[in-house]
This record gives sequence, structure tokens and C-alpha cells, in this order.
Amino acid sequence: MPEGQRPTPRGPLDARQVPRFAGPATFARLPTLEAMGQCDVAILGIPFDSGVTYRPGARFGPSAIRQGSRLLRGYHPALDVEPFFLQQVVDAGDVACTPFDIEEALAQIQAGVTQVLQRSGAVIALGGDHTVALAMLRAVRQRLGPVAVIHLDAHLDTWSTYFGAAYTHGTPFRRAAEEGLLISDRSVHVGIRGPLFSRDDLPQDSDLGFRQIETSTVAELGPAGVAEQVRERVGDAPVYISVDIDVLDPAHAPGTGTPEPAGLDSRELLGVLRKLAGLPIVSADVVEVAPAYDHAEITAIAAAHVVYELLGLLALGPAARS
Amino acid sequence: MPEGQRPTPRGPLDARQVPRFAGPATFARLPTLEAMGQCDVAILGIPFDSGVTYRPGARFGPSAIRQGSRLLRGYHPALDVEPFFLQQVVDAGDVACTPFDIEEALAQIQAGVTQVLQRSGAVIALGGDHTVALAMLRAVRQRLGPVAVIHLDAHLDTWSTYFGAAYTHGTPFRRAAEEGLLISDRSVHVGIRGPLFSRDDLPQDSDLGFRQIETSTVAELGPAGVAEQVRERVGDAPVYISVDIDVLDPAHAPGTGTPEPAGLDSRELLGVLRKLAGLPIVSADVVEVAPAYDHAEITAIAAAHVVYELLGLLALGPAARS
Amino acid sequence: MPEGQRPTPRGPLDARQVPRFAGPATFARLPTLEAMGQCDVAILGIPFDSGVTYRPGARFGPSAIRQGSRLLRGYHPALDVEPFFLQQVVDAGDVACTPFDIEEALAQIQAGVTQVLQRSGAVIALGGDHTVALAMLRAVRQRLGPVAVIHLDAHLDTWSTYFGAAYTHGTPFRRAAEEGLLISDRSVHVGIRGPLFSRDDLPQDSDLGFRQIETSTVAELGPAGVAEQVRERVGDAPVYISVDIDVLDPAHAPGTGTPEPAGLDSRELLGVLRKLAGLPIVSADVVEVAPAYDHAEITAIAAAHVVYELLGLLALGPAARS
Amino acid sequence: MPEGQRPTPRGPLDARQVPRFAGPATFARLPTLEAMGQCDVAILGIPFDSGVTYRPGARFGPSAIRQGSRLLRGYHPALDVEPFFLQQVVDAGDVACTPFDIEEALAQIQAGVTQVLQRSGAVIALGGDHTVALAMLRAVRQRLGPVAVIHLDAHLDTWSTYFGAAYTHGTPFRRAAEEGLLISDRSVHVGIRGPLFSRDDLPQDSDLGFRQIETSTVAELGPAGVAEQVRERVGDAPVYISVDIDVLDPAHAPGTGTPEPAGLDSRELLGVLRKLAGLPIVSADVVEVAPAYDHAEITAIAAAHVVYELLGLLALGPAARS
Amino acid sequence: MPEGQRPTPRGPLDARQVPRFAGPATFARLPTLEAMGQCDVAILGIPFDSGVTYRPGARFGPSAIRQGSRLLRGYHPALDVEPFFLQQVVDAGDVACTPFDIEEALAQIQAGVTQVLQRSGAVIALGGDHTVALAMLRAVRQRLGPVAVIHLDAHLDTWSTYFGAAYTHGTPFRRAAEEGLLISDRSVHVGIRGPLFSRDDLPQDSDLGFRQIETSTVAELGPAGVAEQVRERVGDAPVYISVDIDVLDPAHAPGTGTPEPAGLDSRELLGVLRKLAGLPIVSADVVEVAPAYDHAEITAIAAAHVVYELLGLLALGPAARS
Amino acid sequence: MPEGQRPTPRGPLDARQVPRFAGPATFARLPTLEAMGQCDVAILGIPFDSGVTYRPGARFGPSAIRQGSRLLRGYHPALDVEPFFLQQVVDAGDVACTPFDIEEALAQIQAGVTQVLQRSGAVIALGGDHTVALAMLRAVRQRLGPVAVIHLDAHLDTWSTYFGAAYTHGTPFRRAAEEGLLISDRSVHVGIRGPLFSRDDLPQDSDLGFRQIETSTVAELGPAGVAEQVRERVGDAPVYISVDIDVLDPAHAPGTGTPEPAGLDSRELLGVLRKLAGLPIVSADVVEVAPAYDHAEITAIAAAHVVYELLGLLALGPAARS
Repeated sequence: MPEGQRPTPRGPLDARQVPRFAGPATFARLPTLEAMGQCDVAILGIPFDSGVTYRPGARFGPSAIRQGSRLLRGYHPALDVEPFFLQQVVDAGDVACTPFDIEEALAQIQAGVTQVLQRSGAVIALGGDHTVALAMLRAVRQRLGPVAVIHLDAHLDTWSTYFGAAYTHGTPFRRAAEEGLLISDRSVHVGIRGPLFSRDDLPQDSDLGFRQIETSTVAELGPAGVAEQVRERVGDAPVYISVDIDVLDPAHAPGTGTPEPAGLDSRELLGVLRKLAGLPIVSADVVEVAPAYDHAEITAIAAAHVVYELLGLLALGPAARS
Repeated sequence: MPEGQRPTPRGPLDARQVPRFAGPATFARLPTLEAMGQCDVAILGIPFDSGVTYRPGARFGPSAIRQGSRLLRGYHPALDVEPFFLQQVVDAGDVACTPFDIEEALAQIQAGVTQVLQRSGAVIALGGDHTVALAMLRAVRQRLGPVAVIHLDAHLDTWSTYFGAAYTHGTPFRRAAEEGLLISDRSVHVGIRGPLFSRDDLPQDSDLGFRQIETSTVAELGPAGVAEQVRERVGDAPVYISVDIDVLDPAHAPGTGTPEPAGLDSRELLGVLRKLAGLPIVSADVVEVAPAYDHAEITAIAAAHVVYELLGLLALGPAARS
Repeated sequence: MPEGQRPTPRGPLDARQVPRFAGPATFARLPTLEAMGQCDVAILGIPFDSGVTYRPGARFGPSAIRQGSRLLRGYHPALDVEPFFLQQVVDAGDVACTPFDIEEALAQIQAGVTQVLQRSGAVIALGGDHTVALAMLRAVRQRLGPVAVIHLDAHLDTWSTYFGAAYTHGTPFRRAAEEGLLISDRSVHVGIRGPLFSRDDLPQDSDLGFRQIETSTVAELGPAGVAEQVRERVGDAPVYISVDIDVLDPAHAPGTGTPEPAGLDSRELLGVLRKLAGLPIVSADVVEVAPAYDHAEITAIAAAHVVYELLGLLALGPAARS
Repeated sequence: MPEGQRPTPRGPLDARQVPRFAGPATFARLPTLEAMGQCDVAILGIPFDSGVTYRPGARFGPSAIRQGSRLLRGYHPALDVEPFFLQQVVDAGDVACTPFDIEEALAQIQAGVTQVLQRSGAVIALGGDHTVALAMLRAVRQRLGPVAVIHLDAHLDTWSTYFGAAYTHGTPFRRAAEEGLLISDRSVHVGIRGPLFSRDDLPQDSDLGFRQIETSTVAELGPAGVAEQVRERVGDAPVYISVDIDVLDPAHAPGTGTPEPAGLDSRELLGVLRKLAGLPIVSADVVEVAPAYDHAEITAIAAAHVVYELLGLLALGPAARS
Repeated sequence: MPEGQRPTPRGPLDARQVPRFAGPATFARLPTLEAMGQCDVAILGIPFDSGVTYRPGARFGPSAIRQGSRLLRGYHPALDVEPFFLQQVVDAGDVACTPFDIEEALAQIQAGVTQVLQRSGAVIALGGDHTVALAMLRAVRQRLGPVAVIHLDAHLDTWSTYFGAAYTHGTPFRRAAEEGLLISDRSVHVGIRGPLFSRDDLPQDSDLGFRQIETSTVAELGPAGVAEQVRERVGDAPVYISVDIDVLDPAHAPGTGTPEPAGLDSRELLGVLRKLAGLPIVSADVVEVAPAYDHAEITAIAAAHVVYELLGLLALGPAARS
Repeated sequence: MPEGQRPTPRGPLDARQVPRFAGPATFARLPTLEAMGQCDVAILGIPFDSGVTYRPGARFGPSAIRQGSRLLRGYHPALDVEPFFLQQVVDAGDVACTPFDIEEALAQIQAGVTQVLQRSGAVIALGGDHTVALAMLRAVRQRLGPVAVIHLDAHLDTWSTYFGAAYTHGTPFRRAAEEGLLISDRSVHVGIRGPLFSRDDLPQDSDLGFRQIETSTVAELGPAGVAEQVRERVGDAPVYISVDIDVLDPAHAPGTGTPEPAGLDSRELLGVLRKLAGLPIVSADVVEVAPAYDHAEITAIAAAHVVYELLGLLALGPAARS
């Protein structure tokens, strides 16, 4: 993005001038993409939840995460980085897509993401349910080629069909593998746990090119140890990070659709992400925040901090530094 | 239903033997259709909410209404009737239908209702969103011919399309009119209120053969006056009653998807229903209970009492008395 | 109570000196009975809920009602009376009673009430479930003889037994009638509604000496008309008022154990009570507030205002004026 | 406002193109004042709640009311008016003001309102607590001279001081009267009820030039009768409408700071407002929505509908028609 | 159980045919004991909470845990076992017992459990409060002789009396020891923490034959270390596992009656249970889930997963394998 | 305090005589300072929250913490101490202070604390927001000279001004350092985490004489390791402990104003405190409990246990032992 065409970079509203409970409802009270024209990173809401198999409501995720982001501040001490000032971050609003037809919605989302990617170096999507990751990966593939996926989730999301439907929140990564959106054998699930449909689920997932790092492994190795395994897995591939908020324990993320006990706590999740600094991240999503089940915004605030970590990683990554 | 083939009629569990917080989670702790074989009235859950335009969650409506029905007792003093003893009422369980394809789901629901109607004189459906009323009306039409609809709702639900989709919770009665499921000029909306999309909504609704009785009219005339207008409208036609719980004010029914202030209170709603005793009711639905937004079960309990009123009407109607 | 023995009368803390969210957790931040020695009216908590048949939790009612009473102020404009200044009102704390044995608890409660009545002209009990009314009536009978009961409730509470138990929250008024605690044919239920166990419930209740004024009658006659019927019924008998908070609609009182839709709104309830000014009230209770089901304290605040109305009636009654 | 300088008028996003749970978090998804430059009516958030005496939290009122306004549609059938199309309505964002110094904040709010009034025919403020009404009235006075106030509230808000503080949410109308912001003897409180600090409160309020219409009067006369009394009182004076959401019963508006039972229901409140069509309304506020105490957004949605009624009145008033 | 008498084994409904939010409200949507006749493991609800000393409400525990079990799937990867297919698991419904008399209820529960044990190899009880463990242990003793108890709980539950009552949720294991239901010196508490009534509590507990493993020990040793100590303690005795959900931290289990901070997280609890594979478990209970205090079902879901672990242990134990 | 002047020491009400849900709403149902005259430790409510920058509501903290303290018992096994019996602990009620002027309130609080310190060896303040720590430290300084502060919090609270205000909940420790209330270089923050306003925040904090121990350090070193660092830092200085409940993770303390994910769990927090036994603690506070955002009292209960730990430390400290 040529420096000359750029308007003055702008960060969040100053909380010492406008209280954090006031001001625009954009992510972290950042300027809009409409106002800035272009940017390094765009936060994009994808309020779609028609792919869920249990509790719906993630359609209200983007507005909840934005509300939960009002407390974010400008300097990230653990990474020693200012995510909003090293790069221009904007809020690109919401993709408009139909709740009534999943495949049509996927096309609309992909088109919306593609449009934003024309004006942004990277997109962080706010879901919506996990179905939207497929549309994100399609748009990223189109622009940048296949990627390695670091997928933080309680579930594999590589099931085949459900009620005969190919596109649901349980299938995006199987579809992505089948459609050639992923670099072979570079992707990894982190935080997997809980009962599976059958004994075949894990081998089938491996056959699709994924490695599984279970929550119990996170407990044993700690965030640094897990991050090392992840780095080893993805190598130098361009990376897409997909965070299903249910990778967190229900105590930390009650506001989600398919909660699984015995998950990560928020310290572990942010810890793993921080240890990925330096990876060439191309885009990301944070999905499955269902505010109707949240309490005191704890899920939404956790999700907003996940986005903040992702912004830190983008600021420290090779793309941002170039 | 020939008396000889019938098993011993059975009512709800006796609360003085099994506390109401114990025992099976069927509606009012009634026997199942599976156990009874056939019945006069079947309560049927239709956990489908993929047709909603705002807050989803009515897929959990059937289980919430069943839980809310545990407090019902056997004798209805206002109607002087014992709804569970004058007729065999059963819980027919839930229709299994896909959440991922609206038209496929409509077909599955219609098939499920049709199956139950082969063993039951009438069905009271527990939604689910209002889309399910179309499948109910199709099944009823197939069995009994067209009907008059008494539709209690804050909204007209005769919009045409939304995002290009013909079948949503905002369109069932337009589709029903178009498909010839309704007797011409015998149907009526009760409880209409709030902002509309355009000035054309009301005339178009009238053209489809509906009369509108607004909430403000209920306030003026009272339940008895409203019931009189309704009776005049439906005449001696067979009647299908469709109750969207959002006909109640949000204070009385917070647990719903598209709340509108200034609605009926629960006393008015039950009052209107009671005044319809004697009408030839053929089936009914109670829809749009979204438990994630409910508090202390007040919406679910109100819905359970609506079902109880409907059972009273069925017990007092010509069908039951024949 | 001879004026000379009395300490300086004291009202609630002044909200302009100590904010209402601060200060002691007594009812309306009044002085304690311990501090004052004696009083005209004592507010007495009875945290007992082992008699409930559905949702428990009214054991936390007294503390919730006290918290809800912080907003009360000193002057009652509708009755033109200052309930805290015309008479010395105190908080007498809680009766200690076992949750594990209902009959033992009844004896403990009766003893506790009797003790307070030795130092107070009247008691207003904060329940607890409706079982406590029986202990209250026994203590009142012992001191003053039988009374007329004005019973505001969705339910009759004159059932006989439940699981073989004679003393539960569904039976206090039958027991009271049987034990001769009531003046014959002077008592009345107000706000009755909803399904009954059987067609015999109402005639049996009448046989016990009660009259029933149903919620639908309140809707027709309004508070003034109802109060007139109540006054006619009680005549000049000494009056005990028992308010089950479920006489309110669940929209107004979600925090209760056996909610019934189609109830009174809080304006009607306070309206009926206000119209009873002048009656010779001897004591009262407000029961069945179950805070775990409350929201934003609306049930507790309504109950605190019911107590405030009762205090107004006591201040205006012949006992207080003598 | 000369037509030529105006950009194309724009209404809310079309819900049939962008689902109502998506899109910008402006009121009713309207364009911003920044985008439109000028307008007929500006919705202005004033997230200030440091003047409250009991439950704080109205600082989050503006964002909650905006979220609650997503369900509004374009045509108001009861008034037969299209409030978003007869006039250009915009969202002017939030005033930035300090939470730490009430008088400083009042000056900041007044300045903010004044700025908006330079580009807008009228302002509807979203509170915030009732203190903000004083700043609104000061700004309106400066621009248009004194006004008659129609004040819908459970409380008088004409107390003198509290803890020695002159400016709190209990005093705005006393201060306004003292500062000459009101036309003498043209103002009226509607919905007054509940306990007062002393017998002097009402006469003092009358001395300040207010008339009181109590909730019980609303119950007796109905919305139309009340509106008639209000119209008589205000005559042909320019009118400022101030709606404290606690004029509603806690069942209808749990999310507020000083709830009083026995209030208006939302049908009555909207009913009174509708009957004021034709009055020359100059600006208005809707205050005291405290979302932390709300449930299922029912308070916020009621407040959004109050704003919608106010927009209808503005569209039908002489100012808009000129 | 002779293979010949057995109906075709049946597992939970297939979630790919009937969505998990639909279908019967049995545990994990399993068949009923009534339908299957006999089974290997019966899930039995015991909705009794009259023994609680603080927050009541566990009477609604069985229905909440069943609702929370809808998300369970068929294959347990950590134990590599299919708990629903290696053994016939059924839902045996609820025991009917009086809420009004604790000793009578204990007898009713014991009788109910005994009946089920005649048709089932083992019972997993869903409480209800911890009092029910005594009835379970009596029934188990009667059938199988004394057992070792592995008791996971924040509290010892070996207090003597409370208000003179011998049978409460604080005393079951003292009574069990006194009644000879336990094998001497084989039982152990896991997860003990928090303030005690007196310095004597721990020595008295030891004298009754229990060992205590405190939560701080779990934190130090980890699940595997704790399980080793437990195994050492119980030796080869037949084992009864009793899980009070308050062994979890309130963050993980808010929905309980006597919460204690600083507890286990759900990962630790499931981790300890998994490490007990191979023990000869004879029956078990999961108690003290009080849904009125739960949020987003997180407590109920955790409890359902505890049951799932117990089913895994039963499937892997010597009884199941024989 | 000379033994002779002391009334009979009294502990909490016996829970086996008065159920814990009954009895006075003092902390742990202890006697009042008014009743006892003097004491070793006074629990003092400071219901002030006008210094908050985001969610208000901590004004209701004292009553919530008192309610949450009902479950505490008399013996602390981990410290082997009886905090209520080794020393006389009382509830000193609430300080009355204005919510409308921060500096005036600080003076009122300081005066109130000073008064209590004249009759008590130490004060444990229940906030209220963190602004109150400044008033506490001023009062402590006046009586005992400067102190070392052990500050457990997610935030530094050494910012300079906010909206030009010097005294807010973000600034108490900067003001304390500037006013000479602290012993130089003896204070320490524990639990710091999350985004900061700028890169300068940490060095400026160090310049003010604080050391920072981050949450990640707690995770690495464990409570014992952290406590060792804290002990080393404070040396033999008199110690003031200030616990902002947001040092806990939002999963453990949702009921607070400025939640930060990735915090301590309650086991870690209590663990750190326990390891400080023996330090010469002079007074303490527990602040920022905002009950409107709490669920099932988990935040309030955690805060009550923090107070219990502080009481244990005081009982074991040199002051108490002297």
C-alpha cells in the first residue's frame, strides 16, 4: 500500500478524552474502513449462524465482541508492541448475508471478504459460526494461495455431513481440505477434547492433513511447549488462524453454542497465541461467540482480547514489517 | 376412533404422588403417543428455528414449554372443564427436521404432522418459529380441507420474501393464502401492533383475506369484545389457532425473537382464548418461545398455559363432543 | 404501650445523609427491635421454605425484601400518611427455625412470633413460604383470638395433604380453619386463578368458610370494587392480611415458587390494599418471594412496597390511632 | 434548512438487504450526522450517570437503546406516518463528558448539544441519567427560549439538594425552573407515584410551576384522557418531552436505577405519547435506561420505541411540517 | 444378565438424524428402562433437596443434567471406549419421594434404587442433594455388601447433626460409616477445602475411616498423582463414587448450593476420574446441581460429563468386562 | 487494647442454631462495632463508586460481600487458625459518603476510617471502587506512619489523571506515593496483566516505587514463589494489602467493573495470600465488587473468602499476637 495515498493513520479514540463507554461502536473504537479508504488490517463482522447444530445466536457475535473491545488499550506489554499504531487497523463493518440459505450466504461472505482484502492487507473476521471460516479460506486462497491453518477449537470441525448438509459449522475444514484451500500437512488443531461421534473421527481427520494437539497436551506442555509444536507443524507456510471461542472452558466462555468442559483457560489461550509471534499470518477469524448465553460479557471480552493478540501477531509478523 | 381399540385413558401424573419437579419431561407429564397408540389430541414439538429474522433460539422452545407445563393441574375452573380427562391427550415427541434447509424441513415437518394426525384427532404444535405454521396448515389442509386461521401475533406474518427467501417466519400466512390452505375471508390477526415495513403492508394483508384486530382494539374492547369479532369473522368454519407468543408484551414474554412493546398481558391473551369456547378447532400451534431470552421461565409457563387453554377449547368443541 | 417507657421514636436513616445503598440491612434501614426495646409494628423475617411443592428458595426472601426496601421513603401520598412516623416501626430480625422438620419449625416460628408480639402491637412477617402463615395465625390467635383473613394469592392454599404431609405451603388456611384460628365466614381469597386439582377444590374451600374473588373479578371491578367486596366480607372483625407474592402476574413477580400467568399487576395489588384503609388490621405476612428466580429485584421491590402499604394501613387503623 | 445544501435523504438500512442483527450500531441503523452534515432530527447519546442516587449504569444506556432500536421499521401505522422519511433523522453519536465532575459534565453536555442543534432542527437525547435533562434544557433555552416540559416519570425530580449537591438526577426540573428555562405554569409531570420524602414535596413542586398527573390518574382516564389534560396544560407553548423510563412499571422496565412498582405499562406510555401528535415539540430525552439490570433487552427496546414515538410526533409537528 | 433375555442393545439417538436439541429428554437421549426391561447401567434421577443447609434447588438437578447431556457423543477418545455401546445404558426416570419428610424420603429413595438394581448392574444417581448418597449406599450395601467410597467434594459431609437433624446433606458419610455401609479405612475424600466448623472436624473425619485429599494437593500432584493415592487407598475394594459438583470451583459450577472458592477446574475433575479406569465401580452419584443458580447450563453440562466419565469407568471396569 | 475493658468476645452466629441464610446481614453474621464498643479488627463497608472509568456498581459491593460471607465457618484449616476467635472481629457498618463529589467523599471516608481505627486495631475495608484505597492509606498513615502496599490487581492504578481528574479508581497508588503514604521501594503489584495505555506506564510505575509481578509470573512460580518475592520486597515494613477483585480472571470474578481476561484463579489468589502469614499487616481492603455483573454470587463469595484470608493473616501476624 503506497504511503502517499494513505490518510493520516488513526488509532482508537483516546479513553482519556472520550470515556470508553462512549463513542462509536466500532471495534476498539477504531475508524471505519469507509473513512480510511484502505488499511493494513480490517476487522470484519460476519453475523451468520445458520450453520450451527445446537445453540444458535452467534449472529449477534460481532456486535458483542465490538462492545467487549471497548476496554482494550494501545500498548501490549507482553509482546512489547502497539498493535494499533504500527499498522492501520480499521473496522470494516459487517458483511450482509442471508440467514436462509447456507451456500448463498457462503458466496456472499466470500465476495464481501474479497472486497475488503482489496483494501486491506489482512482480515480478522468476527463470527458468526464456524461455517464462515470456509468462506474466509476461499477468499484468502483466491488472493494468496493455500495456507496452513492453526485451528484453536474444542472440536475437529472436519465432519462430513449433518442431515445431508455439506456446509455447516462442523465441516469447514474438511471442505477446505477437499477444495485445496490448505497446504498439505501443515495444519493443526489445538485444544481438541471431549466425546467424538466415532472412533474413526481422529484417523479421518489425520487423513485430511491435520494434526491434533489436545487440551490435555496443553495442560502438560504449557503454552510455550504447544506453540513450539505448532510452529514446527506450520513451518514457514503462510498461516491462517481460526479461533473457535469454545476452545476455552465454559467457565471462561459460557456464551457459545456447543460448550465442552475441561477446556483451556483464557490465560492459556492468550499464552499460546503470544508464542506464535513472528509467524507470517495472513488472516484470521474468531467465531462462535453467542451473546445470549454470555454473562457479564466475559465471553465477548475474551474474544476481543483474542483479536487483540491476533493484531499483535500481525504487527510483529513479516507482512507488517515489510 | 373406535372405543374398543383404545387403551385405558390416562391423564398427567398425580402431583400428590410424584412431585411436579419429578417424573417424565412430557407435556404436563402426560403419556406418550408411542405408549397410547392413538389419542384425541397430540402435543407435538417442532424444534425448528431456521426461519427467524432476528433472535434465534426457538428450537429449544418445545423442551422449555414442556418444562413450563409441569405446574398445570387437571381442572380448568374458568371453562369448567377437565381438559386431560374429557379427551385423551398425549405427548407425541418432536418432529425430526433439518436445521439447514428450510424447504426440506417444511416437508419433513408436514410429513411428521401428517403421521401424527393419522393417530390423533388434533395436533397442538409447540414451535419452533412461525415458519412451522405453514407445514401444519399444509398437513391440516390435506386431511381436512382449508380452514379459518385465528392468528394471535404482534406481526402480520404475511410478508412476501426476505433476502429472496419465500419461506421464513415472516411469511407463513401469505404462503398459506396463496396455496389455498385457508378459507377465503375467514381469517383474522389479533394483537397486531408496532412499526411496519411500509404503508402497503396492511392493505396487502387485507387483500390476502385477513382482518386485523390491533392490540389497541383489544385494550378498548376487552377479551370478550374481541372474541365476538373473531367469532363473527370465522363463522362456522373449521378453525386453526396460531399463537405467536410475541402477541404478549415483552414484560410477559421476554423469551422470544422479535419482541414488540405495548402488547397484550397474559390475562388478556388467556381471556380472549377462553371466549372462543365452542368453536370447531381442528389444530393449533404455539410458537416463537426462545428460552435463551426467557427469565424464570415466565415465557415458557405462559406458553404452557396457552396450550392448556387450547386443550380446554378442544375439549369443549364440537369435535371433542362428537 | 405507655408513652413514658418509650425511647425516642426513630424512623429510617435519612437518605440525604446516608445514601440508600449504604447503611444497615434492616427493613427500610429502620432501627432494630433489640435497639428500641418495644414498638408498634415489628417487621420479622421468617426464612423458612421447606413447605414448598415446586421451586424452593423463599428462605432467602427476608434478606431480599429488606434489600428491596432501601428505596422506600417516609411519606405515602396516596394514603396521606407517614407510616414510619405515626408509629414506631422496627426490624425484629429473623426467627431461627429448622429447615429439616416442618412441625418443629412451625412451633419455633410460633414461639418467635409470640415473643415479638409481647413487645410489638403488630407483626408483619417476611416469608418464607406460605406455611409460615399458619404459625403466624396460631400466635395471633393465642394473643388476640380468632381473626378474619384477607388472603391475596393465586392459589387457595386450602388443600388437605400432599404426600401425606398436613403442613405445607398449600394447606395453611385449611389447617387454620380446622384449628379455629379464623372467625367463621369472614375470610376471603383475592386473586385466585389458574388450574385446580379438581372440581371439588372450590366447594371444599367454601365449606371451610372462605369466599373467592378471582383475578378476573379484579379485572372487572377494579381495586375499589374488590375492596368493597372484601370490606363487606370481613365486616368489623379483626383482620389478618396474608399476601402471597404470586398473586401478582409472573411478569411482575418472577421470583416466586409456583407462578401462575394472568395475575394482578402491581398497580392493582397496591390499589386493592390502599382501599382497605381503616380496617382493624392485627398482623400480616408477605410470603413466597424466591430471589433466585427474581430479576433486577423487581419481585423483592414489589414485596417491600406491599409491606409499605400494610404499614400505611396499620398507621391508619383503629389500633394505631388508639 | 435550504433543500439545495442537503445530501440525498437517507433512512435506516433496508432490513430485507442487510439483516437487522447486522450493520452499523447507530440508532435504527440510520446514517450519522457526520455523514449527512445536517438533519431535521439528531439522536444524541449522553452516556453520563454520575448523578444517580441508587443503581448506576445509565452510562451504558445509549448503546443499549441503539441495540434495541434495530427492530424498528419505517412505517408507524397508529400515527400513519413514516418518521424516517418525512424528515432526515441521523445518529449524532455520543457527547464526550467527564464522569468525575457533575458541573463540568453539564457544561460539556450543553456545549455538545448546542453544537448538534446548529446542524439539526431538534435533538432526541438518549441518557444517561436524568441530570442530562438540565443540560438539554439549557441548550434549548439558549437557542429557542423557554419551553413547557412534559415530564413522564415515576418521580418529581424537583428535589432541592442531596448530600449538598445541587445537580443530581433528582433535581433537574427544580434547577430548570430556577434558571428560567421553563415557561411558567405550562409544565406537567405524568406518571408520578410511590413514596415521597415528605408531605411538602408535592406543594413545593406545584410552587415551582408543575402540575402532577399520577399513575393512578392514567389508570382511570386512559391515555387519551391524560393526553387531553397534558395538552390543556401546555397550551401552544413549545414543548420539551422528557421520558424517564422508570415511568414504566418495573415489569416493563427492570433496567433502570430507581424502580417504583405500580407504574405504567408500555401500551399506556406509547398510548399517551401518540395522543400528543400535533404539539410543537422542540427536543426531547429518554433517560435512565441502566442495561446491567435489563433482561432480554426489554427496557432498551421499550426506550427505542419511545424514541420512535417521539420521532413520529416530530414528523407530525408544526416544525417538521413547515 | 443372560444374553438371551435381552432386547437389541440401543444407544443414544443419532444426532445426524435427530438434532440434539430435539428428541426425548432422557439422559443422552437414551432409551428408558421401561422400554428396555433391563440394562447394565441405569441413570436414575433423585429430585430431592430437603436436606440442604443453604441454597435449595437441587430438586431440579436431574432434569437439568439430562438437558445438559444432549451434547454427549458416543466415543470417548481419552479412554478409547464407547460407553453407550459396550454396555446397555438406560434412563430409569426419577424416584418419587416426598419433599416433606427426610427419613420417609430416604426410605422411598432406597426402595426405588433397590428396584432399579434388580434390573440393572449399576446405578448412576442424578441428585438431588447429597443426602441421597446415604439411600444409595444403603441400597448398594443391601445388594453387594459394604463398599469403599471415593468422595469428590469441597466438604467432608461427615458432620454429626444440624439443628438436631441426623439426616442432611452434611452428614451422609458419617451415617454411612456408623451404619456399616463402608469398608473400614478404604474411603477417601478428594477436593476438600475451605473453612471448617472447628479444629475437630478433620480428626473426627479420620476417626470415621476417611482419608482427605485436599484441593491444594490436587493442585500439587495433578490428576494422575491424586488418582494414584486414591487407588492405593481403595485397594481392590468394590468402589462407590460420589461426586458433589461443588468439588468444582464456583467459576466452573456456579449452580450449586454451598459454593467454595479455590476448587478444582473441570479439567482436573475429569482428569482424576479418567485415571481411575479399571477400578471395580459398583454404582455412583452426581449431586448438588442447583439449576436456578446455573448460567448457560455450564454446571449441568459439567455434571453430564462427569456422568459420561463414570459410564466410561463402568464400561472399562471388571464388572462390565465380565 | 487492655483486656479488662473488653466485653465478652463474640464470634459469628452458630450455623447449627441459626441457619446461615437467616440472622443479621453483618459480615459473617458477626456482632457490630456499635454492640462491642471496640475490637481487634473491624470490617468496614465503603459504598463509593464514583471513581470508576467503565462499569459502575461497586457501591453495592459491601452488601454483596456481606451476603457472600454467610457461608464462612470458624476454623481455617490451611492456616490452622480460628480467625474469629483469636481476635475480636466486628462489622463496623458502612461509611456514609457523598456519591457526587470525589474529593469530599475521600475526606468523609478518611474521617470514617479514622474513627473506626480509634476503636479497632485494624480495618478491612469492603469497597466500593479502588479510589477508597487512597482514603484508607491516608487514615493509616495518620495513625501508623507510611506502609508498604501489597497490591493485588490486574491494573497498576498509578495512572496520573483521567479527564483532568486526579482522584479516580485508576490513580490511588500514584497519589499515595506522591503524598508520602508509602515507604519507598517496598510496594509491589501482583497480578498485573493486559493492555496498557502506553509503553511509559511500566517505567513510570517503577519510578513511583512499585515492583510489578505479572500474572504470567504467578503462573510460572506458583503462589509460594510469588509470596517469596513479595516478602522479599516488603521486608519488615508494616503492610497494607489492597485486593482489587479483578486480579481474578473474569471467569472467577465476573462482577467487577474493568475485567481483564487471563487472570488468577481463586485458588491462586487465596494461595498467595496464605503464604503471607506472619507479615505485620496493619489494614487492608477488598474492592471493585460490582454485584450487578455478578452471577450466583461467585464474585461476592470469592471476595468474602479474601477477607477471611486477611483475617487469618491478621490473627497470625505480630500485631494480633502481641
